[in-house]
Amino acid sequence: MNTYSIGIDIGGTNTDIGLVRDDGHVMAKKNIPTNKYFDADIYVSDFCEQIKLLMQENNIEAIDGIGIAAPVGNYYTGCIENASNLNFKGVIDLLRMTKSYIDVPVVVSNDANAAAYGELVYGGAKDMKHFIMFTLGTGVGSGVVVDGKLVLGKTGGAGELGHAILIPEGRQCGCGNKGCLETYCSATGICRTALEMMENMPEYDGALRKVAPEELTSKMVGDAAKYGDPLAIKVFEKTGYLLGIAMANAVTFSGPEAIFLFGGPVKAGDVLLEPARKSFEEHLCFIFKDTVDIRISELPDNDAAILGAAALTKA
Amino acid sequence: MNTYSIGIDIGGTNTDIGLVRDDGHVMAKKNIPTNKYFDADIYVSDFCEQIKLLMQENNIEAIDGIGIAAPVGNYYTGCIENASNLNFKGVIDLLRMTKSYIDVPVVVSNDANAAAYGELVYGGAKDMKHFIMFTLGTGVGSGVVVDGKLVLGKTGGAGELGHAILIPEGRQCGCGNKGCLETYCSATGICRTALEMMENMPEYDGALRKVAPEELTSKMVGDAAKYGDPLAIKVFEKTGYLLGIAMANAVTFSGPEAIFLFGGPVKAGDVLLEPARKSFEEHLCFIFKDTVDIRISELPDNDAAILGAAALTKA
Repeated sequence: MNTYSIGIDIGGTNTDIGLVRDDGHVMAKKNIPTNKYFDADIYVSDFCEQIKLLMQENNIEAIDGIGIAAPVGNYYTGCIENASNLNFKGVIDLLRMTKSYIDVPVVVSNDANAAAYGELVYGGAKDMKHFIMFTLGTGVGSGVVVDGKLVLGKTGGAGELGHAILIPEGRQCGCGNKGCLETYCSATGICRTALEMMENMPEYDGALRKVAPEELTSKMVGDAAKYGDPLAIKVFEKTGYLLGIAMANAVTFSGPEAIFLFGGPVKAGDVLLEPARKSFEEHLCFIFKDTVDIRISELPDNDAAILGAAALTKA
Repeated sequence: MNTYSIGIDIGGTNTDIGLVRDDGHVMAKKNIPTNKYFDADIYVSDFCEQIKLLMQENNIEAIDGIGIAAPVGNYYTGCIENASNLNFKGVIDLLRMTKSYIDVPVVVSNDANAAAYGELVYGGAKDMKHFIMFTLGTGVGSGVVVDGKLVLGKTGGAGELGHAILIPEGRQCGCGNKGCLETYCSATGICRTALEMMENMPEYDGALRKVAPEELTSKMVGDAAKYGDPLAIKVFEKTGYLLGIAMANAVTFSGPEAIFLFGGPVKAGDVLLEPARKSFEEHLCFIFKDTVDIRISELPDNDAAILGAAALTKA
């Protein structure tokens, strides 16, 4: 008999709620607009209503648990704390608030850690004990699995490889530091690289030159690269080169079986992955040679966040 | 009643064998000259003889186990493999060879991982679940403890933070890569920095100028710094600055309670530790602010390796 759980992905704009079967099939989804709520109690009450609706509409009488992924979700406390992109200020005790409406096990985590759980439970890491996941998006997140368990650290905030410093005194990062991986290999970092390179290549008059800087996206750069745009190719060569070093560095820490890559920029495909793999092999410490696979996440794009959140209940 | 175990520290020149009481007191030690042996069987037979002698001389009838720390010791296989600094070539099955002479539990690991175990069992990390140890010597080793267990990874070789790349395209490292932490923050790296700085400071005519480059040691640089030598102080400022970044990067991975520093260069004291702590605080990602202590290893210098090896039997 199948069992079911709920995955909730809290974003700044929308909150997605999914009913997930134990084989990783997302049966149905609902969403509510996060940014329309200013009272956390009403917000939690409303997404719990949606959970009940999802269960009724799909004739599901019981769920194993509710997993919630939020940008600053803390696994140990079950709270979100001072989320910069949410209207709810201070410490919000999501775990206990949710349980007061639906009394099942509730697990809260940050989104990159949830993604790693998703890969472990429903994705390409099912048979693995040691892997690292990098999620490339507006920022760079990561989740680290050691001995089949997520590395959470003292405070629950471990696995922030997007803020490991890759280039000392490099690009200014939103976190206050300089040279973090995120400033180079996120979608935003890719655009920064493209704009920098355009400034240094006055002779370039390709497709990207016609885009207003503030409208440039990493997807545009990726598409241009696929069509052979020389600047876009250089952008991904640099991005891949730096991502390869970051992945090789991560390996020295936990000696994983694989590194999984997830997110928009990864869709650029070989134009990113070829230089990333080449740089990874070049920079991987010889002790680990031929022991680590670079893999693309096997989570389906649209449901990855919900699956990751639902996977938290299986941890 | 006290219990006892044996710690063996295999170095390229000497092999130290210690009888360790469960409270971390090293009761007695023996040693044999590693580099005088060319046959691994005779070597293992001889150190096992020394273990029996240690037990007889101290009236110990039973030991809990034997822990062996070797530069390339593999925890999973119990072997040392192609050790570049030993006369024994190929794969040496230390675990089974030792057990054939003394049938107690035998554990093999690399030296930095053993040091981390030593800190966990006998040192300053007794009450900790998450910490990272950096051992600064000829190279830089490290051991990572997560949830009270050493991170070993797929092959048993995890925790090689000395070979995380700190400065892309930086100094040539013996491992083949460029810019590894080890090339800057090991004893050797400190000497390289001193020689580089002397070349760029022709006006400097302090104590270190009088030393032949091949005879310079990090201890000399440390001593000079303590006496206010301006070049030596600059050397440690740079070393501490880079060590601080490396420690901040390590925190993003596992969010530990503490980072422990061990080894010769650490004895330089505040001249290294002050800039290291300052740089660490500056570069630590805000998520982890005020959650991580920088600590000096509490293992006694002379017995640290034996204690680390003995601690392996308690893992």
